Amino acid sequence: MNLRFTNCRILASDMTVIENAELITNADKIVFSGKAAEAEPFISGKTFDRVIDCDNDLLMPGLKNAHTHSAMTFSRSLADEYSLDDWLHKAIFPREAKLTPDHVYWFSKLAYAEYLAGGITSCFDMYFHREASAKAAVETGFRHVFCGAANDFGGFETLEANYNDLNSYDPLVSFVLGFHAEYTTCEDNLKFMSELAHKYEAPVFTHISETSAEVEGCKERYGVTPAVLFDRLGIFDFGGGGFHCVWFTDEDRKIFKDKGLYSVFNACSNLKLASGITPVHKFISEGMKIAIGTDGAGSNNALDMFREMYLDTVLSNVETNNAAAVDPAVILKAGISGGAACMGLDDCVSLDAGMKADFIRIDMHHPASLPENNIVKNLVYSGNPGLVKMTVVDGKILYENGDFTTIDIEEVRRMTASMVTELA
Amino acid sequence: MNLRFTNCRILASDMTVIENAELITNADKIVFSGKAAEAEPFISGKTFDRVIDCDNDLLMPGLKNAHTHSAMTFSRSLADEYSLDDWLHKAIFPREAKLTPDHVYWFSKLAYAEYLAGGITSCFDMYFHREASAKAAVETGFRHVFCGAANDFGGFETLEANYNDLNSYDPLVSFVLGFHAEYTTCEDNLKFMSELAHKYEAPVFTHISETSAEVEGCKERYGVTPAVLFDRLGIFDFGGGGFHCVWFTDEDRKIFKDKGLYSVFNACSNLKLASGITPVHKFISEGMKIAIGTDGAGSNNALDMFREMYLDTVLSNVETNNAAAVDPAVILKAGISGGAACMGLDDCVSLDAGMKADFIRIDMHHPASLPENNIVKNLVYSGNPGLVKMTVVDGKILYENGDFTTIDIEEVRRMTASMVTELA
Repeated sequence: MNLRFTNCRILASDMTVIENAELITNADKIVFSGKAAEAEPFISGKTFDRVIDCDNDLLMPGLKNAHTHSAMTFSRSLADEYSLDDWLHKAIFPREAKLTPDHVYWFSKLAYAEYLAGGITSCFDMYFHREASAKAAVETGFRHVFCGAANDFGGFETLEANYNDLNSYDPLVSFVLGFHAEYTTCEDNLKFMSELAHKYEAPVFTHISETSAEVEGCKERYGVTPAVLFDRLGIFDFGGGGFHCVWFTDEDRKIFKDKGLYSVFNACSNLKLASGITPVHKFISEGMKIAIGTDGAGSNNALDMFREMYLDTVLSNVETNNAAAVDPAVILKAGISGGAACMGLDDCVSLDAGMKADFIRIDMHHPASLPENNIVKNLVYSGNPGLVKMTVVDGKILYENGDFTTIDIEEVRRMTASMVTELA
Repeated sequence: MNLRFTNCRILASDMTVIENAELITNADKIVFSGKAAEAEPFISGKTFDRVIDCDNDLLMPGLKNAHTHSAMTFSRSLADEYSLDDWLHKAIFPREAKLTPDHVYWFSKLAYAEYLAGGITSCFDMYFHREASAKAAVETGFRHVFCGAANDFGGFETLEANYNDLNSYDPLVSFVLGFHAEYTTCEDNLKFMSELAHKYEAPVFTHISETSAEVEGCKERYGVTPAVLFDRLGIFDFGGGGFHCVWFTDEDRKIFKDKGLYSVFNACSNLKLASGITPVHKFISEGMKIAIGTDGAGSNNALDMFREMYLDTVLSNVETNNAAAVDPAVILKAGISGGAACMGLDDCVSLDAGMKADFIRIDMHHPASLPENNIVKNLVYSGNPGLVKMTVVDGKILYENGDFTTIDIEEVRRMTASMVTELA
């Protein structure tokens, strides 16, 4: 499909806005984005499947959900009046024991629908029954990056096979090495993780320093924090990073900074589960690599990157007593190119020519987009999923004005409604 | 206009959901809401302007924005990298000095559009050039409750006239006594405020304990907190309440509880301005009257009650180390009936027969509404303005599927775009 978007504005990679712009795609790629006056060579003699007048709306790269458990949509608003321990043992684990690949397929489709409706074009997903998610992703046309979630209860024995199989499954699907967390993974398995990272010279991701109890437990077991432990074991020798990073010490941040590792923030989940508030301003002032994710629907409960970006911008203000502790442009960039680079999607970081055609159209006629004192700040401080008019992944329009082109949302609704009863 | 909504679900006043329901209006009132099987007497022999099949969507009372400065939409994302003091003195005050009634009219209309698109059916508004807002509200069909904002720079001399004039202006418009805050109001004016409250036996509202500096200043001036001072002066003898309430002491809460005063939370504004985090769980466990507001677009920057309700539910979790410190059903009720009662809209608290027809339709086919493990929790934890399919105020459909019926949003966009340039 070749698409031509006229009469638009474009969010450039430096977070400035190009006025009077056009964007042109050829199959899965962007071939032009910039001033309409310069578009002529990419138009003349070409035929387009659709020419879309954007009415001066903004086209921007899709948001990248850099940490999630997609199929956990089954657990949205499920027994979340329980304490974390009861929630896991009474509500989640018994249901996860019953989860079949078919369940994961449908609950993943539900997540993709929410991602697309909220302007998210790719996710970094930690869950199981991966073939079912991969099938759902390819059918949907959604860009799905798996992260290994191996732990002492399973996953290490298949980690290498997953890495090889899912990285050759489909262009929309990839797999990054990862394990669940220090507190679920013994030292031998951590060493195995390091060996695999070295064998493939590959980055590794994991949950890290999400709760203070996790950090204290690690210090009791090893005398050091998880970041120090993983670094000593060589797990991060080829890059990677961690999810949550709430309780990082200065030393932990220095390790991540020196090794160029990604810190992925999950503000809503950390608030809801009472895990804590990440001092985002420190990561930014120290020039660290950052990305943003929603975590799963069980602990958030929305898969809404706008809410995450808002909170990553404002939550540091109270601690620092500074009404502008965090620059919203830095957070927007983290939600776009930070996430893409973190997930290994180097061809999804911007709307420059040659990049994958993963982008969204933002309604600039919606009251929350007005007035245009500052478009980037409006997006971060006032944005919500309701502003997303269109979501394009890999050059295909997957969501437009409330409708999904590849997902039958009524079928998803019926199937998931019946499945939550089966799992109960 | 007489409307009949079939095939719907209804949020009852106890926050339970009535399945297989209908809702019927007659002019500005709800004449029936409940089980479809019981609707017959309200249907037979009647004619309806529209019969709307809701496709099993949820009808619920409109959200009540119980503290805002509507016309401050002019200041959204305006210079908010400044500190609070610079922001006020360099960005806001110079523009407010130039604001004409015409500016207030258009920027109020922009706010009403955002309210309607986000499921808000009435606002409790503190600002000036009130006749311009009142005109815009009546033209829009929006329910606008003014709160006095008198202070030492002006307003006390016209407060009584405003009270009498605006309370007889139009059924959609009302006026509640109020003043700006202790730190902008001298003791003589506070005493005058109290006399007026006694003369009309009327409730009084004000900004209260928003920042710790405000409380410390009051203690230096009077030796007591603002709540104690106002109580001693008799300002609250006929009810009312305060906005923000971030730095309330145990004694302040006891005064508010004993006098039945409303505490109105403004979580987003307090985070963004680094004012602090209100311990919402304490207000709830002590059985206090609570409501929720967005504050103005300059300090939020969205006029989004969903984001407020989410934060009022989860922000107490970290402080209490409890993943369920606040019941989302209590917060949803505060966002609906709490707000209505606080603003004196006793006929807007629920969808019971006899109440004003102020309600919204929530898309139950949107992925963020699925699965339906718990509808109320989905609304609070996963809701966003994009779920609002229809907003009805005073029996009239003002917003439906992205379109406004009484606001020309393109005209609002053009006018406000030109006006922000005039004000700069």
